[in-house]
Amino acid sequence: MSSTPSRRPRALFAMGRRHRDALFPPAVVDRLAHHVDIDPEYVAESFDGVVDPAAVEILITSWGCPPLDEAVLGRMPELKAVVHAAGSVKHHVTDACWDRGILVSTAAAANAVPVAEYTLAAVLFANKRVREIGGLYREHRDALDWAAHYPDLGNYRRTVGLVGASLVGRRVLELLRPHDFDVLLADPHLDPAEARSMGARLVELDDLLAASDVVSLHAPALPETHHLLDARRLSLLRDGATLVNTGRGSLIDTEALTDEASTGRIHAVLDVTEPEVLPAASPLYTLPNVLLTPHIAGSLGGELQRITRSALDEIERYCAGKEFAHPVSRAALTTSA
Amino acid sequence: MSSTPSRRPRALFAMGRRHRDALFPPAVVDRLAHHVDIDPEYVAESFDGVVDPAAVEILITSWGCPPLDEAVLGRMPELKAVVHAAGSVKHHVTDACWDRGILVSTAAAANAVPVAEYTLAAVLFANKRVREIGGLYREHRDALDWAAHYPDLGNYRRTVGLVGASLVGRRVLELLRPHDFDVLLADPHLDPAEARSMGARLVELDDLLAASDVVSLHAPALPETHHLLDARRLSLLRDGATLVNTGRGSLIDTEALTDEASTGRIHAVLDVTEPEVLPAASPLYTLPNVLLTPHIAGSLGGELQRITRSALDEIERYCAGKEFAHPVSRAALTTSA
Repeated sequence: MSSTPSRRPRALFAMGRRHRDALFPPAVVDRLAHHVDIDPEYVAESFDGVVDPAAVEILITSWGCPPLDEAVLGRMPELKAVVHAAGSVKHHVTDACWDRGILVSTAAAANAVPVAEYTLAAVLFANKRVREIGGLYREHRDALDWAAHYPDLGNYRRTVGLVGASLVGRRVLELLRPHDFDVLLADPHLDPAEARSMGARLVELDDLLAASDVVSLHAPALPETHHLLDARRLSLLRDGATLVNTGRGSLIDTEALTDEASTGRIHAVLDVTEPEVLPAASPLYTLPNVLLTPHIAGSLGGELQRITRSALDEIERYCAGKEFAHPVSRAALTTSA
Repeated sequence: MSSTPSRRPRALFAMGRRHRDALFPPAVVDRLAHHVDIDPEYVAESFDGVVDPAAVEILITSWGCPPLDEAVLGRMPELKAVVHAAGSVKHHVTDACWDRGILVSTAAAANAVPVAEYTLAAVLFANKRVREIGGLYREHRDALDWAAHYPDLGNYRRTVGLVGASLVGRRVLELLRPHDFDVLLADPHLDPAEARSMGARLVELDDLLAASDVVSLHAPALPETHHLLDARRLSLLRDGATLVNTGRGSLIDTEALTDEASTGRIHAVLDVTEPEVLPAASPLYTLPNVLLTPHIAGSLGGELQRITRSALDEIERYCAGKEFAHPVSRAALTTSA
């Protein structure tokens, strides 16, 4: 076609085949082929069988991409860019990539959108006690004075505490803005002015836990965030508070949370857990004050198209000689997901 | 106090006493007393025992105010304004009020906020199948391929259809804007350009029902909207669509909805029903594809403070000789709640 640029860099899909099929259906690959020279049939689930790896300039990666280690990179001397059609690049982008100056882009911002939407809905329903009151209505099948049962019911001037100003955390902050909340934010890498510019007040984590009606976790899984919410911190939560986790299961000590939730003192909305899947005997499956979903807050179904569009945009930017809109740096990875 | 204006119009609370206590606690009445001459102890639940009714210039009304009929108005010749600290004024503002040129204000806009928030959360969770997938996870306690079960899962480019550009409907439109939805709107009193300016595409109701992933009802209860969703219209809903009703129970033929929901073909989130409370034997209490809550989407608990603030602002405007920010007219009532 006349609109196809004369030089199209060689690109390669490197991800699980089912993710390639979901993210890059034929119509998308056709669009992609305007910009890059790519075998539409080939998906590298490992790098052993790649034909002419020395010509590859762009890797289009997603869930299931093997690590890009020294051995792999040694066979791809022309590799200049990794465009990741998913969130975190930590599983495949190694130090060897950074050492070689390979440019890395992520669709983490696109992937943050559905997680933030799930969180927003969880917050709005939690403050309104939708699950509990729905359950009581089903039980009693009569008019009750809900406001008397729950004198602080509703979403007006309630305190929402976000742990971590990650991409998801920042998107949640934006989505909370049209509502009448006091928003607290705990993040060791932020200063108070930055938090204020996001519409939140920076506080220490312990203070956030003690002051919030809903606490939502958006911190990355790092050694220093392992079991960030342990028994002591969970005990700081207010009676009746709701803990939302759409981040990583390892942020919470599951045993301590199970103990705390089993008393009915706090509520929880858990989309991620440690382990994932929880043991079949876990009380978290059946506690009436716990809503448990199996890691569905992130991009699924039609939401993958948002990631696809983000990756295509990045590839077009690269081919046009522009910088990535969503670059990742080695430094950023030490404090993010 | 020096800031108290010299002429303070006589005002009277007219509402159920428990609503007065919830909406106008002592600290609020103190603020009110700067602007109006009011007996802080007296609440008219009927107008029979009012002392010196001839002096009353402002009625502060809410749920439980008796009708302001000719007989009542005859005893209040100085009445100039009704400030309603709730939503619809239809239960107490009569033609006699309009005939006398009494100014009427409503806190309906403040009351619309929590209803719109509930609707937003219901939409976001419905498209993500949170209740169904949560139920399946509880049942199977194992990893399943949710995207395969629900290929169109998620909130990306799904179609949301709103029935009625009421105050609540308009607030829902605003809250949907940060999300990636195609929004349809059915309202016989709107033209396409008005709908476009609200971020929606105006369509006929039947077309909206056939095209939407989620349908949310925000039409007023009027003779022409009684059972607006009857068996024929419910059958137009797409397989797997979710019907949200935070408007009025009478908008839906309950029997027809029960039949349609019992097949599992559609989902429903019902905060209002006809009758309210539903009979104890209604299948709607227990169907896994129905979330039933007992009329809690509107202002409850802390959300009453938003209504209080709206009413106080209107009284201050009146006392300062300004027009109401939220006036009601006789004409508007023929097409609104």
